[in-house]
Amino acid sequence: MPHFRILNADPHSSARRGVIETAHGPVQTPAFMPVGTAGAVKGILPSLLQETGTQIILANTYHLMLRPGVEAVERIGGLHRLMAWDRPILTDSGGYQVFSLSSLTRIDDEGVEFSSHIDGARAHLNAEIAIDIQSRLGADIIMCFDECTALPADPTRLETATRRTIEWAKRCKAAHRAISDCGFRIADSSRGVNPQSEIRNPQSNRLLFGIVQGGTDLELRRRCAEQIVEIGFDGYAIGGLSVGEGHGNMVRTVEFTAPLLPADHPRYLMGVGMPVDILAAVRAGVDMFDCVLPTRNGRNAFAFTEQGPLRLRNSVHGDSTEPVESGCDCYSCRHFTRGAIRHFFNSGEMLGPILLSLHNLRFYQRLMSNIREHIERGDFATWAAGQMDQYAWTDNQ
Amino acid sequence: MPHFRILNADPHSSARRGVIETAHGPVQTPAFMPVGTAGAVKGILPSLLQETGTQIILANTYHLMLRPGVEAVERIGGLHRLMAWDRPILTDSGGYQVFSLSSLTRIDDEGVEFSSHIDGARAHLNAEIAIDIQSRLGADIIMCFDECTALPADPTRLETATRRTIEWAKRCKAAHRAISDCGFRIADSSRGVNPQSEIRNPQSNRLLFGIVQGGTDLELRRRCAEQIVEIGFDGYAIGGLSVGEGHGNMVRTVEFTAPLLPADHPRYLMGVGMPVDILAAVRAGVDMFDCVLPTRNGRNAFAFTEQGPLRLRNSVHGDSTEPVESGCDCYSCRHFTRGAIRHFFNSGEMLGPILLSLHNLRFYQRLMSNIREHIERGDFATWAAGQMDQYAWTDNQ
Repeated sequence: MPHFRILNADPHSSARRGVIETAHGPVQTPAFMPVGTAGAVKGILPSLLQETGTQIILANTYHLMLRPGVEAVERIGGLHRLMAWDRPILTDSGGYQVFSLSSLTRIDDEGVEFSSHIDGARAHLNAEIAIDIQSRLGADIIMCFDECTALPADPTRLETATRRTIEWAKRCKAAHRAISDCGFRIADSSRGVNPQSEIRNPQSNRLLFGIVQGGTDLELRRRCAEQIVEIGFDGYAIGGLSVGEGHGNMVRTVEFTAPLLPADHPRYLMGVGMPVDILAAVRAGVDMFDCVLPTRNGRNAFAFTEQGPLRLRNSVHGDSTEPVESGCDCYSCRHFTRGAIRHFFNSGEMLGPILLSLHNLRFYQRLMSNIREHIERGDFATWAAGQMDQYAWTDNQ
Repeated sequence: MPHFRILNADPHSSARRGVIETAHGPVQTPAFMPVGTAGAVKGILPSLLQETGTQIILANTYHLMLRPGVEAVERIGGLHRLMAWDRPILTDSGGYQVFSLSSLTRIDDEGVEFSSHIDGARAHLNAEIAIDIQSRLGADIIMCFDECTALPADPTRLETATRRTIEWAKRCKAAHRAISDCGFRIADSSRGVNPQSEIRNPQSNRLLFGIVQGGTDLELRRRCAEQIVEIGFDGYAIGGLSVGEGHGNMVRTVEFTAPLLPADHPRYLMGVGMPVDILAAVRAGVDMFDCVLPTRNGRNAFAFTEQGPLRLRNSVHGDSTEPVESGCDCYSCRHFTRGAIRHFFNSGEMLGPILLSLHNLRFYQRLMSNIREHIERGDFATWAAGQMDQYAWTDNQ
């Protein structure tokens, strides 16, 4: 059975409605992945996360390798057991965080050495280590180790990063194949791995996604895409966007790059984004997204609603008996008033961040559900255009 | 219908199994009330709180009067609406926090003036104001305004506090009667109170509890109890304990005071305590308890278990695939390993405090459920003696 099937294609855009089969079940696409940085979507219990419509979570290899460490995750029984999440998990490769969070001490064609942002401990990451760690965490979808460059970037810097991303992708594929062929890793028994987690996460069923870099340089994107596709992966990601280039450049780059990736494989736009970004990328043929915005903004008292953003610290909400978003079926909106949520934020009560994270996650998952429904109906293009006008505010935040 | 019925009395101790009828439904006693300081049991969504077996919450008048303020709570629709909790709520009078948290600027027979611990704002509290605020919050059980003295205390200080507590109790009863007789308060319409909350919280159905003070001075306790009982209340609390006197003095005082309170009314031991304290007090005939321990300790990585305390930051739990407490049916124990919870605490993830608060609340509610069951069976005294040996550790924490 192929791991990706397209169920419907929108007649008036490149949007598609599909399903990815993983070791922990299917993912209906287009899909949005909440970010569970260190093994938890901040403040959200897994049953409530499921209630938002979340099908798949992204977890960060960089954070988990530093704390609690891959050996500890293995001994606990794998990342699914740690997170109490028995549905699909995608792990990133650690590349993005190495370049954005840590103090780099060496970067060359071999890989990177860096100091942990937590305690300064030295660590090493390269293509083989990134694949090994993600396999041992038990991820359903594994990402290639890549070099992500902040934009705007010096052309030589961007070119070097893109070249390395391609070389590392080849090594990642070889490493992934070696691990998949073993079935059980040689070192397993000595590490005391819980056999349960291995049975539930058959190595051979883990998908490996390649990543296309190249900033907003379309020629570089084309060359990188061609070579990544030639190596051959289970899915293809567009990386290195949402790093300072702005909505227009992002959309232009996605619209250029997505068609260069095989139509019969899932396409994943990493780290994006606002609702308007997601709508534009789905229209260009992208199937998967991840972003910290619903949870991070939720923790900062910012709520997404169809009527525009709401800042719950604002005193106008002090006496409000309305829910955050009228008609919303999320836990927060079913139970709590804006007035109560504002009070929780003002009093430093954890319920404030929890309730708005839940609402924002439900807002995002409802958006994805609507996107899937409109692609099925064949009226996505028109509907999305209307939605993008409505969400124009989201670009000004 | 009387608001308190005794269903079973233990043949070998003073323990009783009863039910208190409130405007928001019944409370099976002996009962434990988690503390929802500022309108939220910290980090715990109401549906999960209900799942722990919680029947009634305590909320703090002092915190709510300062933030968001009683007018704001009224405009939101009352405390039940603010908290999204449609079961019983007991509010304290604010006295305890005024004396422990704020900067007192005046205390005399009239009442107290103090500066808010939040922003230094001047505020005024006395018997009439405390009853007015609690009524306006919509509490099902209202506590008399009292003066609570830290122990050990100077005898004159203790005597004055006890005398004031009695005088204030008389004024509280009069204020409560005045409000109950009005039905709707005169000022309601101008405050824009949500009529829904009034209908759900009929004023006439609010219970008023008197409080006995007197420190560990048994003669003072006797005099205070006699006079408070003479005034006549819907229930009687033993206040001023768990303030530094130690387990032995606490139990001695409770065993002396409880029989002085009418057997056909609920008895409430305020701010207590550890499992061993609760067992001893139930044996002495106490029906209700509140304490921050399950939630505060949970936030500090301390778990209650039948096998003794667990400190989840301890590195021995790093690789543990066990639940916090084997056989426990709480959300945490059903889903998460000790290793995962330790990792959440080490990483500053909110899920750590949330999961251990949930576990500890379930531990306390299971204890109460067991207490009720053993009183029903008539073997409470023997069972409790065994439990108190088992929980001896809890006195050394």
